[in-house]
Amino acid sequence: MIGRLNHVAIAVPDLAAAVKTYEAALGARVSAPQVLPEHGVTVVFIDLGNSKVELLEPLGENSTIAAFIERNPTGGMHHICYEVEDIATARERLMAQGARVLGDGNPKIGAHGKPVLFLHPKDFNGTLVELEEV
Amino acid sequence: MIGRLNHVAIAVPDLAAAVKTYEAALGARVSAPQVLPEHGVTVVFIDLGNSKVELLEPLGENSTIAAFIERNPTGGMHHICYEVEDIATARERLMAQGARVLGDGNPKIGAHGKPVLFLHPKDFNGTLVELEEV
Repeated sequence: MIGRLNHVAIAVPDLAAAVKTYEAALGARVSAPQVLPEHGVTVVFIDLGNSKVELLEPLGENSTIAAFIERNPTGGMHHICYEVEDIATARERLMAQGARVLGDGNPKIGAHGKPVLFLHPKDFNGTLVELEEV
Repeated sequence: MIGRLNHVAIAVPDLAAAVKTYEAALGARVSAPQVLPEHGVTVVFIDLGNSKVELLEPLGENSTIAAFIERNPTGGMHHICYEVEDIATARERLMAQGARVLGDGNPKIGAHGKPVLFLHPKDFNGTLVELEEV
């Protein structure tokens, strides 16, 4: 069912500082920041050729990553996103296997404008899993 | 400098259970387990087409991931591995930028038989970074 590794998201407390580190120390190609108020993050993309890393900085008081940064003040790996062909089919399979979909259980439009689901970290070895329909 | 996203490693307390979850709930293609006593892990690979996930289970008392599992009993994302063309050049650049290389600072032969370095998580927003020469 799961296809390509779409991205790995790393939450950071200070996006400008993180970008500087990735560019200077790792020679990474980093995009310009995108402000996504509806997702409560400012994001940059690191193009790795085959996949990408997203650096997320909390935006606003209701940021979806605020609690994570509170628990991990220096930042950390936040989630991993796998591509799926059909998110409704994926959801059915997951529910049948007892995996919990976060929120109201229905796909939302994600940061890339495509339908996404987030799965409970407790069902996947402490790892927050995002599925994105492509 | 950094090239492709080689893999994301997820540490798990029970490899057999994790494999079952990835196969049943996510429909993932999972390799047979490989026992790597010199790295203190048993590992399986999840082929995602463009990249891969490695599930790591601690092996032996001196496992490199034993402390991580102690802090995160249900498991969690452990490290991210980027490919580099020349690990000696990468190391020089990193040292010049003040990034700390773990261990004695010299490349080791990693789990894939290639030279690797691990970088201090505190220098990369709480994320353990592996560089692998390919």
